[in-house]
Amino acid sequence: MIYLDNAATTRQKPQPVIDAVVSAMTTLGNSARGTHEGSLSASRMIYGTREKLATFFNCPRPDHVVFTANSTEALNMAICGLLDPGDHVISTDLEHNSVLRPLYRLEAERSVSLSFVPADRQGRIDYGEFGRLIRPETRAIICTHASNLTGNAVDIGRVGAIAHDHGLIFLVDASQTAGVLPIDMEAQQIDLLCFTGHKSLMGPQGTGGLCLGENVALRPWKVGGTGVQTYNPAQPEQLPTRLEAGTLNGHGIAGLSAALDYIRAVGMETIREKEETLMRRFYEGVSAIPGVTVYGDFTAPRTAVVALNIRDYDSGEVSDALAQDYGIATRPGAHCAPRMHRALGTERQGAVRFSFGWFNTEAEIDVAIRAVKELAE
Amino acid sequence: MIYLDNAATTRQKPQPVIDAVVSAMTTLGNSARGTHEGSLSASRMIYGTREKLATFFNCPRPDHVVFTANSTEALNMAICGLLDPGDHVISTDLEHNSVLRPLYRLEAERSVSLSFVPADRQGRIDYGEFGRLIRPETRAIICTHASNLTGNAVDIGRVGAIAHDHGLIFLVDASQTAGVLPIDMEAQQIDLLCFTGHKSLMGPQGTGGLCLGENVALRPWKVGGTGVQTYNPAQPEQLPTRLEAGTLNGHGIAGLSAALDYIRAVGMETIREKEETLMRRFYEGVSAIPGVTVYGDFTAPRTAVVALNIRDYDSGEVSDALAQDYGIATRPGAHCAPRMHRALGTERQGAVRFSFGWFNTEAEIDVAIRAVKELAE
Repeated sequence: MIYLDNAATTRQKPQPVIDAVVSAMTTLGNSARGTHEGSLSASRMIYGTREKLATFFNCPRPDHVVFTANSTEALNMAICGLLDPGDHVISTDLEHNSVLRPLYRLEAERSVSLSFVPADRQGRIDYGEFGRLIRPETRAIICTHASNLTGNAVDIGRVGAIAHDHGLIFLVDASQTAGVLPIDMEAQQIDLLCFTGHKSLMGPQGTGGLCLGENVALRPWKVGGTGVQTYNPAQPEQLPTRLEAGTLNGHGIAGLSAALDYIRAVGMETIREKEETLMRRFYEGVSAIPGVTVYGDFTAPRTAVVALNIRDYDSGEVSDALAQDYGIATRPGAHCAPRMHRALGTERQGAVRFSFGWFNTEAEIDVAIRAVKELAE
Repeated sequence: MIYLDNAATTRQKPQPVIDAVVSAMTTLGNSARGTHEGSLSASRMIYGTREKLATFFNCPRPDHVVFTANSTEALNMAICGLLDPGDHVISTDLEHNSVLRPLYRLEAERSVSLSFVPADRQGRIDYGEFGRLIRPETRAIICTHASNLTGNAVDIGRVGAIAHDHGLIFLVDASQTAGVLPIDMEAQQIDLLCFTGHKSLMGPQGTGGLCLGENVALRPWKVGGTGVQTYNPAQPEQLPTRLEAGTLNGHGIAGLSAALDYIRAVGMETIREKEETLMRRFYEGVSAIPGVTVYGDFTAPRTAVVALNIRDYDSGEVSDALAQDYGIATRPGAHCAPRMHRALGTERQGAVRFSFGWFNTEAEIDVAIRAVKELAE
């Protein structure tokens, strides 16, 4: 199989990530649940991974790195833990349902009001819109770092500056970018950063997290056992315990830790450049084919995603043909990005998304280009 | 290390579990996120695991098996998704903070009222108390299957009958029992079953779930991307999607699936008998030692847990000595079970918990007995 669905999950993990999970599954106890070596080594490994993530994202404190099962849990935790009745939020048309559905729920249940910076037919936003949408009751800007559908990146440093100039909380959904585009919570003025471990970070599924800046407080999401303050009827106040109840996915976190080491050793910029080269090669190969429509802006920073349609063919049928006739894995349909499809005018057709990763090769790209060409003819 | 902290997590996993995780980490796509083989095989594996769990717990439908990151998430999802303002809940003194803290939060924030069936000094409950505590506004009985501190099991079939005789929802926390004591949702009249994968089920950390009976509805917990119904602003209605947003821990679930196969092949009753034998051997060895106080009821069904104290020594110091001088891993302190410690009168001292698992041996038990004897002398 030629796997071009890396924006859904990076299917192949680096060998050291697998080795770390195997090692954890034979040695790891339950972190923060005792003082024997099995438990202590789990606690040390988990704290070490918080430190690595804090360094990676320039999060001010390792204990402000909270582990979650995935990005969606981190986004629910951040959005629901932050917003109060009457708050107004500015978001964008680029968002995934993992941002939209928590917001729509709070709009319906907690009288939170919402505004969206619109995207144009290339999926681009006008940064001036953020400022124009701010109201006295605006509490936060919640914004993806890159569209999962078009691959267009958002200049989060620019949005962070707008947010902080107006005293707003800035929450970034880095699901599509953590591990491949630079993220610096301090320089980009990010207060809440939600990420997943199993995409560009190349870690195991079941990992992800939420990094908090110094000056942001969230209500707890899930509550329960923490291994500390047993007699406190409420969840302990201090981070990360405040937002982490129950046994952490120690086996997965061990893999994520190895993945961070792997990325540091290879160099994130090396990975990004390779993925960019593959993406550009594919884009140049398919964009000139008659009948192919490519979506998104290829003149600005972006992730290694190319979404396209062939004539008026249903995206599901094209993706099926790619899988069955060519052994190429892509993703069709609506991609959990309803506002983005409305902006692109692809609400009914969906789009076929090709997303490239570190383990792809130029030869695979060339096969994919030929496949698109044959399907278009 | 002699690992006697299996009630916190089973540190050693069966080799087929590790093999399944490794295989998943090289082949698995993102389930329900496409139609290529990587995604489809993930979807098939995950649905197959739902089927195995439904069979294992006699849950009426595989699509009523919802995956979570751990038991705590399942309990939050079930408790917060079920209870409305004004509801009254009956629980017990045996509960873990993963049940207590969600309940206390709803008591404070949602005007839910709570009653607790008290435990005596041996950690036993009077089943007649459930009926006596029922009021017109009682909605549910929420009850652990076994105390994580004493190992005393609750006759959940008996409590289920009381619940259903009075039209109440019955929620069971099976964190300490799933994989080792028989659970049958139909026979025991369980409406909501919360379990973890990394304890007696011997699966990876980061796995667990919630099984729903036919006639119970929960509000969604986290909301977000589901790979279906992209244009629906709310979480889809149907289970399991209604309660599962974001990418599942496919790598962990692959391991859990192998763990279920392993338990079925070995036989749950074989595992239970071995753990029971080890636990009884330890109990008989330590209960006669002068200065040793053992907690719990050893005349009734129980898990393979023995909690004890030596004289008035701090439980943390005893556990440290066991770890450092004998290489024996136990867990001291308060065990996230505040009401249980109050009932046992061990609020200040805590207790040293020895918990036994499938991979322990009689020789290890004998070393542990000698260690307790030496520390008591």
